Amino acid sequence: MIIDCHGHYTTAPPQLNAFRDGQIAALKGGASPSLAAISDDEIRASLEGAQLKFQRERGTDLTIFSPRASGMGHHIGDSAVSVAWTRACNDLIHRAVGLYPDNFVGVCQLPQSPGAPLEAVVAELERCVTQLGFIGCNLNPDPSGGHWTAPPLTDKFWYPVYEKMAELDVPAMVHVSASCNPAFHATGAHYINADTTAFMQFIQADLFKDFPSLRFIIPHGGGAVPYHWGRYRGLAQDMKRPPLTALLNNVFFDTCVYHQPGIDLLSEVIPVDNILFASEMVGAVRGIDPTTGFHYDDTKRYVEALPLSAADKQKIYEGNARRIFPRLDAQLKAKGK
Amino acid sequence: MIIDCHGHYTTAPPQLNAFRDGQIAALKGGASPSLAAISDDEIRASLEGAQLKFQRERGTDLTIFSPRASGMGHHIGDSAVSVAWTRACNDLIHRAVGLYPDNFVGVCQLPQSPGAPLEAVVAELERCVTQLGFIGCNLNPDPSGGHWTAPPLTDKFWYPVYEKMAELDVPAMVHVSASCNPAFHATGAHYINADTTAFMQFIQADLFKDFPSLRFIIPHGGGAVPYHWGRYRGLAQDMKRPPLTALLNNVFFDTCVYHQPGIDLLSEVIPVDNILFASEMVGAVRGIDPTTGFHYDDTKRYVEALPLSAADKQKIYEGNARRIFPRLDAQLKAKGK
Repeated sequence: MIIDCHGHYTTAPPQLNAFRDGQIAALKGGASPSLAAISDDEIRASLEGAQLKFQRERGTDLTIFSPRASGMGHHIGDSAVSVAWTRACNDLIHRAVGLYPDNFVGVCQLPQSPGAPLEAVVAELERCVTQLGFIGCNLNPDPSGGHWTAPPLTDKFWYPVYEKMAELDVPAMVHVSASCNPAFHATGAHYINADTTAFMQFIQADLFKDFPSLRFIIPHGGGAVPYHWGRYRGLAQDMKRPPLTALLNNVFFDTCVYHQPGIDLLSEVIPVDNILFASEMVGAVRGIDPTTGFHYDDTKRYVEALPLSAADKQKIYEGNARRIFPRLDAQLKAKGK
Repeated sequence: MIIDCHGHYTTAPPQLNAFRDGQIAALKGGASPSLAAISDDEIRASLEGAQLKFQRERGTDLTIFSPRASGMGHHIGDSAVSVAWTRACNDLIHRAVGLYPDNFVGVCQLPQSPGAPLEAVVAELERCVTQLGFIGCNLNPDPSGGHWTAPPLTDKFWYPVYEKMAELDVPAMVHVSASCNPAFHATGAHYINADTTAFMQFIQADLFKDFPSLRFIIPHGGGAVPYHWGRYRGLAQDMKRPPLTALLNNVFFDTCVYHQPGIDLLSEVIPVDNILFASEMVGAVRGIDPTTGFHYDDTKRYVEALPLSAADKQKIYEGNARRIFPRLDAQLKAKGK
């Protein structure tokens, strides 16, 4: 089985964005919008020509599926706006999973809001996991959208979320949303910077002493981290912090790196137990690489080309995801998979 | 000849930092400080056991030398404070170069200040190049120190600096300073993020149509860029921007990547004409890698191990630096080198 641990519902029916536009309009005065009805057929149509088509064409089986990351927009409005938007997005993921239970499993957006306390975040995480069958969440280290006003992920501010994650035994992908800072292009700078930033925060503090079972996936191949693995080993050493291997019970990297040399480096530097297959399709990069004739984000081709044993590739494709998302493993076992 | 294009005076005599401490104290009221006398012997002592020792031990010849990057602190005080501090730092570089003209050549810090116009920056660049013999500058894309309040490097805000750089025919290294944002560790996140951010800014706009001769070195191996080269190729393509190769007349990467797999990837992905040897010693990472027995930042060992011809290595070690820093080339030729 090939599990893609990083897919977003970037192709949701237009009623969802219309609801969001209504929310944004309401911020300037006006009534709060309601989400127009979306039929099952509209959901099917939005997926059949996109995520499901690519699953079939590329030979992947199951996508760990969450709302569009750049759409989370935690910086827009206040906590109540974020809660309403987040519930709409997560509920739509739940419906997609219900229509295609063999193709998708849910991961939730969280109703973060800059400076807001985390009660609503904890409540939505609990709702999604215990009521909707979701297996994890996307946690935004910068709900301000490129101004980086939140404390580091190791700060006690975040502990209520971590307590709930530990209780529910679900991991988080560290994933920012859109950038409202003109310095940062969203998918070209902000996303990658956030990945790099989060890893360095984990080096600096003792978060995993307080939460030994907490698990984070750093997407986009870990940002700059594997490429600069020597720098991070050296910084940890100079700072008298534990070696990076001490983080590897808790921190994992996906394979959203869109060329062969990048995946080669990831595989050379990061232990195979810490790499999860992912493509982020349909996502940040949608074109076809003229040097290969295949989509840039068809990352399975790069993983296939790695000089790894079948057992190691099985870890990247399936085993690690089932270990890191134990609720996924339980769901699959219940289906006899 | 082996030219290290990225070295900072991280070991300056303590009078320099005392002056800075005096400036910071004066911000809270009190007299402006003056820089206490520093003798030539004190400068020699500060370099002999550090940068010069490493040059000898590692077999490098000439370091393109600039003030300590994390010390630039453009976010501290106002433009006048930045000017006084910058002049002190650059003048000390000038003295170090004067004492060791075969070992060092100067690159200047610029007196940037958040939100301030660039007249003082242009004036200091001109002073350093025309009066002190400097060959380039370090340009900080985020003088706010981690709040990223400046416009992108492609914004017309920056054009006065670029006009002077073009007139003087000097390149800039894109280099941030310390982070006063607790989310960003300086050398572990802020530096690398800035490198990634700058490259994406260059993709998004047509800066090099306006300044065809402008040249930027992106340090630390280009941040995350080479590792994600496929992502950047794909983003440029999706955005209907020119291919990345169109940037390669103007954008260059150094070799401050502190492990062999990273340098291997850099060399595999980036054309040899766009790679400049650098170590950043004595800099961000000072320890010895227990897996090799050598300093992490002894990057010459990694370059030596590349499967490149002697002619290609000569480009990385010397040829590219002489091309990108034409004032260096002229100085070396005047010495018969």
